[in-house]
Amino acid sequence: MADAASTLKLNAAHASFGGAQRFYEHYSSETGLVMKFSIYLPPKAVEGEKVPVLLYLAGLTCTEETFMIKAAAQRLAAELNVALLTCDTSPRGAGLPGESESWDFGVGAGFYLDATAKPWALHWRMESYILHDLLPLVGARLPVDLARLGIFGHSMGGHGALTLALRHPGVFKSVSAFAPIANPINCPWGQKAFAGYLGDNKAAWVQHDATELMAAQSQAPYPAGILIDQGLADKFLLEKQLLPEAFEAACAKAGQPLTLRRHPGYDHGYYFIQTFIDEHLRFHARQL
Amino acid sequence: MADAASTLKLNAAHASFGGAQRFYEHYSSETGLVMKFSIYLPPKAVEGEKVPVLLYLAGLTCTEETFMIKAAAQRLAAELNVALLTCDTSPRGAGLPGESESWDFGVGAGFYLDATAKPWALHWRMESYILHDLLPLVGARLPVDLARLGIFGHSMGGHGALTLALRHPGVFKSVSAFAPIANPINCPWGQKAFAGYLGDNKAAWVQHDATELMAAQSQAPYPAGILIDQGLADKFLLEKQLLPEAFEAACAKAGQPLTLRRHPGYDHGYYFIQTFIDEHLRFHARQL
Repeated sequence: MADAASTLKLNAAHASFGGAQRFYEHYSSETGLVMKFSIYLPPKAVEGEKVPVLLYLAGLTCTEETFMIKAAAQRLAAELNVALLTCDTSPRGAGLPGESESWDFGVGAGFYLDATAKPWALHWRMESYILHDLLPLVGARLPVDLARLGIFGHSMGGHGALTLALRHPGVFKSVSAFAPIANPINCPWGQKAFAGYLGDNKAAWVQHDATELMAAQSQAPYPAGILIDQGLADKFLLEKQLLPEAFEAACAKAGQPLTLRRHPGYDHGYYFIQTFIDEHLRFHARQL
Repeated sequence: MADAASTLKLNAAHASFGGAQRFYEHYSSETGLVMKFSIYLPPKAVEGEKVPVLLYLAGLTCTEETFMIKAAAQRLAAELNVALLTCDTSPRGAGLPGESESWDFGVGAGFYLDATAKPWALHWRMESYILHDLLPLVGARLPVDLARLGIFGHSMGGHGALTLALRHPGVFKSVSAFAPIANPINCPWGQKAFAGYLGDNKAAWVQHDATELMAAQSQAPYPAGILIDQGLADKFLLEKQLLPEAFEAACAKAGQPLTLRRHPGYDHGYYFIQTFIDEHLRFHARQL
């Protein structure tokens, strides 16, 4: 099998705020499939300087394009001299039975973990894909400094950001989220996904639940704090899919500083994310 | 037939930068069909203050959603206290033979004029729709001040902005464009559209050509200047669809101040628009 770097292919590039918005694909040995990602490089990175990088994980049904099109993050990323990196939300093209029948499971819904249950275990390996294929590839081939790597995400990607940050604290220097699925073992989306990807073993489930992972900490894993923004008109908050209050309680128990901002009137979408994206970029840039 | 205001229906609303991003539909007696539009209201407008408003016209294949999702304009519009208004790029649902067969003619390609040729003349009346249905409706029902109305647009919508501004100088107080189709009678897109919508009468064509309209001016219609941004890596510029140099020459002839900025490396898409959107908003806000 080819290694990831040797298969790297640039599909599109667009000038943006003096920097470069690029879309790539490459073969991943972790997923066994071709994977797509996107990166925004600020002007200094285009000139060759290695810059800090922020990995953004998107929500259900999204792709590596969604954040780059809808979040309006490039303007300030150019100014702060931070690269933005996005990956897809699942493997695509595996051809597993039923992989595209649900919008909240299978294609577009990888939940940023390695599946252990059949038939998903062979390809649905998003955690290992990110850590062992995507990040090393980007670090080797693009002008970013992985020693200054932050992570954030939205909804399912907020779950991904919080859990990867807690499972790999040496890898990520800063973490934030928009409307994360913060306690998946206790919400319908998470229960469906974890049952499908991890089977009945509840001991495995808690290893991918941000609230459970935080509650198990003996000291603050991110002493500079975690930032979460949540809209109060978010229908998925009202449907108890997100449960930020559970994560808030776990942070309090672990002594983890958390800024959880509740915004009246804001919903779950990218108009909400656009409104607060600048503050997230500044939050990370201060730490990277 | 119902008047436009009585059929106004709010389809979606999202909080954004303290203001409101809203999507509406209404019946238009000009097009004889239900039309969609979107408006971003800055915070003060949501509180009831009548604010200046900027009408944005989108390009081929776009809808009333495109600008609001992709242009990243709301942040500064909120700060400058300017509303943003977008309409669709053509009537939809007329069911005319072949209306959806081309991406550059028919549905999604109304060219912001009133068709006179059959079968388009009955519904394809985007100029009258904007002037006689959309703007009066918005002025009557939403907190905007039509005495402080600017217009801008992209590609086909840049053509629309320039031609409507020149055909109705009392209506619009300021005008700018991104990569406009600036001389449609001399490019393939324009020739196809004008032949289809206006027939063979070339005297009618020149009445919808920004360069011809400007060349016919005896004095500067917009003495405070017109702003145009154009990417030099724009494939449609290279294919001679845009012809900004023709409009530039016509402005020089008419004594119309024009700032035509040519940007190396930038293409035709919304990453280009995002990069320069703030300067367009400030350009209009100074005049409104």
